[in-house]
Order: sequence, then C-alpha cells, then structure tokens
Amino acid sequence: MRITGVDITPVAFADPPLLNAVGVHQPYALRAIVQVRTDSGYTGLGETYADRAHLERLRLVADAVTGLDVFALNAMFTAAARALAGQTGSDGHGLTGMITESGTVDRVFSPFEVACLDIQGKALGRPVSDLLGGAVRHAVPFSAYLFYKWDGHPGSEPDEWGAALDPDGIVAQARKMVDGYGFTAIKLKGGVFAPDLEVEAVRALREAFPETPLRLDPNAAWTPQTSIKVAHALDGVLEYLEDPTPDIPGMAEVAREAPMPLATNMCVVSFDHLKPAVLADAVGVVLSDHHYWGGLHRSKLLSGICDTFGMGLSMHSNSHLGISLAAMVHLAAATPNLTYACDTHWPWKTEDLVEPGVLSFVDGSVAVPTTPGLGVELDTDALARLHEQYLRCGIRDRDDTAYMQTIDPTYERRKPRW
Amino acid sequence: MRITGVDITPVAFADPPLLNAVGVHQPYALRAIVQVRTDSGYTGLGETYADRAHLERLRLVADAVTGLDVFALNAMFTAAARALAGQTGSDGHGLTGMITESGTVDRVFSPFEVACLDIQGKALGRPVSDLLGGAVRHAVPFSAYLFYKWDGHPGSEPDEWGAALDPDGIVAQARKMVDGYGFTAIKLKGGVFAPDLEVEAVRALREAFPETPLRLDPNAAWTPQTSIKVAHALDGVLEYLEDPTPDIPGMAEVAREAPMPLATNMCVVSFDHLKPAVLADAVGVVLSDHHYWGGLHRSKLLSGICDTFGMGLSMHSNSHLGISLAAMVHLAAATPNLTYACDTHWPWKTEDLVEPGVLSFVDGSVAVPTTPGLGVELDTDALARLHEQYLRCGIRDRDDTAYMQTIDPTYERRKPRW
Repeated sequence: MRITGVDITPVAFADPPLLNAVGVHQPYALRAIVQVRTDSGYTGLGETYADRAHLERLRLVADAVTGLDVFALNAMFTAAARALAGQTGSDGHGLTGMITESGTVDRVFSPFEVACLDIQGKALGRPVSDLLGGAVRHAVPFSAYLFYKWDGHPGSEPDEWGAALDPDGIVAQARKMVDGYGFTAIKLKGGVFAPDLEVEAVRALREAFPETPLRLDPNAAWTPQTSIKVAHALDGVLEYLEDPTPDIPGMAEVAREAPMPLATNMCVVSFDHLKPAVLADAVGVVLSDHHYWGGLHRSKLLSGICDTFGMGLSMHSNSHLGISLAAMVHLAAATPNLTYACDTHWPWKTEDLVEPGVLSFVDGSVAVPTTPGLGVELDTDALARLHEQYLRCGIRDRDDTAYMQTIDPTYERRKPRW
Repeated sequence: MRITGVDITPVAFADPPLLNAVGVHQPYALRAIVQVRTDSGYTGLGETYADRAHLERLRLVADAVTGLDVFALNAMFTAAARALAGQTGSDGHGLTGMITESGTVDRVFSPFEVACLDIQGKALGRPVSDLLGGAVRHAVPFSAYLFYKWDGHPGSEPDEWGAALDPDGIVAQARKMVDGYGFTAIKLKGGVFAPDLEVEAVRALREAFPETPLRLDPNAAWTPQTSIKVAHALDGVLEYLEDPTPDIPGMAEVAREAPMPLATNMCVVSFDHLKPAVLADAVGVVLSDHHYWGGLHRSKLLSGICDTFGMGLSMHSNSHLGISLAAMVHLAAATPNLTYACDTHWPWKTEDLVEPGVLSFVDGSVAVPTTPGLGVELDTDALARLHEQYLRCGIRDRDDTAYMQTIDPTYERRKPRW
C-alpha cells in the first residue's frame, strides 16, 4: 500500500480577536490540509500549521515520503529528517517556543503520520485509536478555553461572544461556553493584563464555578518572582499553572516554590527538552500536542516518558479544524495516563471542512469515532471555500504581534512583561 | 476479534552446562508457550518464562484478558495489572535483578501482547514489524554469546561444544560459533573466574578477532573498585562493559571512571528504574528484552526513552526458543536506534518447537520474516514432546545456584564476589 502522492492545501478560517501575551489573533487562522493518496485507493487526512516556511517543508517531506508503504512509519520519519536536514527556526507566533532541528522534523512529519494512520485504519476496518493500543475511554473530556478579547476585530461587527476584558466579562464568557458545551474544566489564557487583574479573574471564576478545575496560562509573560507571587495567590485554586515564566531554569525556580504543579507547552516542546527538564525538575505536567510531537505514535512515546519520569500529561491546542480534533480524540482516548481534560479552541471557530455530525460535544466531551480510520470525511466544497479564503485573506504567517501593532502602534513584544 | 481462551504450556529443552556468576545452567531450560485463541479463528503465539510463580501469574492474566478485543492492548495491560495487584518477587535465577510490582505486570503481560500482535498481523496480512512502524533493516545482527562451560553435565556425555575453562577454550568456542553462524560481534559471559583470568580471555579474543566488537558481562560479580580496574585494563578493547557491579549507585560510581559505556540488564529492568538511572547517570546502554519490558510496544517505549535521554540500546537474551527469536527480530528490525548486535542463546539449544526454515542465521543475522504476524508456526508434535520433557525433568524453577551446589557443595552465592 504505497503512497502515490500528497496534496497540501492551505486554508484560512475566521478567528475572533483573542488576546494573548504576544498580541491578538488575526482575523483568519491558517491551517494546511494534507491528503495522502495511495495505490490502494484509500486517502488519508492530516492537518497542520500553514505558515510559509512550514508549507515549504511540508512539500519537501511530501516528495520524500512518496513511494513508501503507509506502514513504513520508521522509514518515513528518517526520510523526513533527511529532507529537512539543518532546518531550525521559531514558530512565528512565539507561543510554543524555539524549534530545534529534531523538533522541526517532528512538526513536519506529524500530518503525514496521522494521514497514514487514517489510511491504515480504513484499510484494516479499525478506528485509529485501535492502532494506538485501543481506546480506554469512550469520550474525551475537553476544557473550556477562555480568552480576554475585544467584541470584534477593529472595523468589523461584534462577534457572538462579545468583549471580555475584566473578571465579569471572563465569567460571562465561561458561562456561555460551559452552557453551550458542558465543559467540566476551565482554562484562562492570561499574560494579557497585569497579574493582579488575572488573579482577580481566576478568583471570580472560582466563585462562579466552585467545583470546576481551573487553569491559568500567561504564556511565559512573568518573571520567576512574579510567577511565585501569583502561584501563592492562587494556592488551592488552580489545578495547574501553565508556563508562568520562560525557559527550563526559570520554570524550575518557580516549581520549587509553587504550591501547584507547573504545566508547559513552551519550555518542553520537543524530545530534546525532556532530559534537561527532568534533570532540573522544572515541570509537573507536559501538555502534549501531536502537531509538534511528531504525530500520534510519538505523542504516545511522550506519554510513556511522562508516566516513567513522574510527570502528568495534558493536551495543548492551537486554533484547529475537525481533522485535528479527530486525531486529538483518538490519541487522547488511547492514552491511559492523559488524566486532565484536553485544551481545544473549537468553540471559537465558525467554519470547518469535515462533514458535520461525527464530532460533537456532550457534557464537555467528544465521543471517540468508532468507524475506520480517523472517522471524519473531508467536505471538498468547504475545503475549496477555505482555500479561496486563504488566497484572499493575504495572511501568510501567523503574527499576533504585528497585527496588534497595526491597531496599537505602541504595543511592544516583551517576555517576561511583568 | 475477541479472545476466547488462552493455552499456557510449560516446556523444557536441553541446555548445556553454561557457567555464570550464580552457578551453572541446569540440564533443562524452562519456557511457557502462550497460545491466544480468538473468535476469528486466528491464534497468536507468545513465549515466556515458566517458573512456578510466573506460570500461576500467567494463568491469572489469561483469565483477565479473555473476552477482550485483540486490539485493546491498553485495556489488556490494565486488566493484567489488576489481576496481579500486589505481586512482587525476584526472578529466581538472579540475573535480571529484583522485580517491582510494575515490573511483574510487564513480565506477565508480555507474551499476551506478543500473541495479540501475532493475531493482528495475521488478520491484517502484515508482519508484526509493520505494526511497530515498519522494519528499518531486512536482517537483524546478533552477537556470539560465549560461556565458560564444562564439557557436559556431570554424569552425561560431553556435548558438541566441549569444555571452555580458560582463554584457549573461549577462543576455540568463539571460532566454532563464528564459523557456524557468521556472528560479527562477540559477548563473553563472565563473573565465573577471577577478573584477571577473564581479562586475559577477552584479550585472547581480541587477538584472535582483531576487528570484532567485544563485550564482557560478569553479571554484577564485582565491587565498583574491581570493576574500575577491569574497565581500565580493557580500555579500547570492549565496546561496552555489561553489569560489572550491582545496583544503580554502584554502576554510577564505575561509570564515572570507566573509559567505555556501561550496559545493563540488571540495574534497569523496569520502567521504575529509568528515572533513578538517568538522574545518577549510571548507564550508557540499556539492554532491552521484550520478555520483561512488557512486550513489543513497551520495548519500543523503552527505545524511545533511551533515544530521548541519550542512552544506547542493545538487546538481552535468556535461553529461548523460536517464538521469542521471531518476536526479537521483528522488534529489533522496527527499532531504528537499536544499533548494537543483539544477544541470543540460540546456538546453545538443540531442540525447538517452531516449524523450521523461517529463522536462520546468515552472516550473524536473521532475516526479518515478511509473512503475516510473527511469521512462525508452532510444530504441535514438538510442543507435546517438550511439554512431556517438562513433566519428566522435574525442574520447576530455574535455580543455577542450587544445581551448582549439587555438584560442588562448597559453592556459595555471593554478589559481588570479587
């Protein structure tokens, strides 16, 4: 069952003005849809980032894996590494840290692996979760993902969520999201306002949702000293504090004082980072993300490493579409030690390109698809429409800071900021 | 595709009087053959230890996994863990260290996982290596495994190998084994004679085989001080020194001084041991072994951990039959960072229970079977014969020390001995 070709289609979908530590989400989020074709007639789906440099790398790897068997994942990874030899860089939007060479390979290889598992599953008549050791849960719990936000992009109508710029706005957003989706855990993206104001927002959430696990993620906007102060202020309130400060030594400094576990998707974002993080005892919880951990099998490796080295496991999200959600659900279902509710940006989007009906939230969870492969089908009209939108929107790289500076020319990117 | 039942058959096969740090191999080595039956008509094969306590645990787990789907490996592992809750112990023969509770689960679960992969492969029309990411080598190199030995068991005729009790005997044994199998690496099981005599034997091997990678494994018979002396004496001669001394702190002490990497299948034998070994920087190479690392998928996890934490990877062997060799070959073929030749006791046995023809050594390597599943078929007559031999031989637990003491009543088990 050999790969005969790969289609890579960049798409753009509307995204609200969500604020974070480096600026604000642009009006459109970019993704690339990877369709792997085989001589068996089966086609597999993958979804990944679509920044310019990443698209170029995807095309290099598409050529490198063409001709290989869809089960030859080891050989495919080696082929990807060869095709990308020497490539490093940053992720542009600054939210998942610097990319090492090995991290680059994992990031580019990922959608090909997911697509091959989709094909394997279809050919074998088995859901992807079965290729990962089998689902240990029928539905995967996700967390509400709250953002400070404006009521709309400048010059546009307000969106359905309205503004959230203070504790009341955040609590109202949480209520709407919990009512709509049934989430049983809540995460607030911080790093936007002064730490005291964000502590106040978390306390307001605790008052409004007395039993719900809460998380705060300022994307490394704070110094270690600020982080320790916030950690003490939120003692007994947060289930974990996510990336308060940059880098492994900084996180280790905070971890020694913080009463709750520290989680990360910034200082541990590739296999290279795990040994230094373990030696420094910097991290209590790793947020996995198959998009940059090399696909589903390598995310399972990360899970096994967390289990072996006494770290907890949660799941990170970027703005994504249905193919990614399906992959996240299969992976999470087949990962016994993934005991935290996963992140997702799902409620923030208004468009998708998979056929509706398979992925839906009930009580904050998504049922694991049981049909062969990922269990989602591409809506080719929607793909064409979102590709058109990509061509039209003019955005080619995610840059939350530059977009913010078009609105507020005095805005500066600083890490840590407080 | 559900498991409808499991047959566990203990067998015994003739084993020569191979000497080691805790005594001498008994006239028969024990194995248990695990046959997993399903409602699909496919049957899968696994092979494991057959000591009494292990057989009892296998039966507990056989009951616990019956009714599960052959793809539900995560659920099967949980079921095994539940069935074995609270069980710890030692391995009897003292060559792979103490068994923790989690190590016990891995050891008992392993043959069921291998059998399920055999079934998955048969049902999918794919070799087991494809279920592990695909073979990255067509043939797997093994190492000649030399032992000091008597010419035969007391009271029996000399075996075809004759005695090897000094450097000349070891070199002669190496020549016969290399001539017969084509091995391109050589390991000497030490810990039998005073370290100076074993250093002499390794130097004689180096002279006789100037280019061949050499290893020495005294099974923790030495103090750290003795180990460091031997390590310096064999500087530039050994590719690695295996388990010179007991325990992680002892190994770390030797590792700080030894000019070559230290390898282990004694101080790191379960996932529990990896973090302390990494923190102490005790080990340069882990010898994996799917029989006690929880099967093929969890051995792949071990491989990924070695890769991530900068440790090399080799493969350990106990006396085994063809089902285990097939599993070892599939695993090794699908493990890119397994860069050392694997251990095997294969040349020492004279009987087997798989249909001949699939597994053969060419230039020291075994070609990876490409037929569905493990690629080996059980010879049911041979199984019955070796089971009869088990019933007749009276051996129920491996105990190299007790057998040695029947021959030399003054023999004492001591670790370290020198």
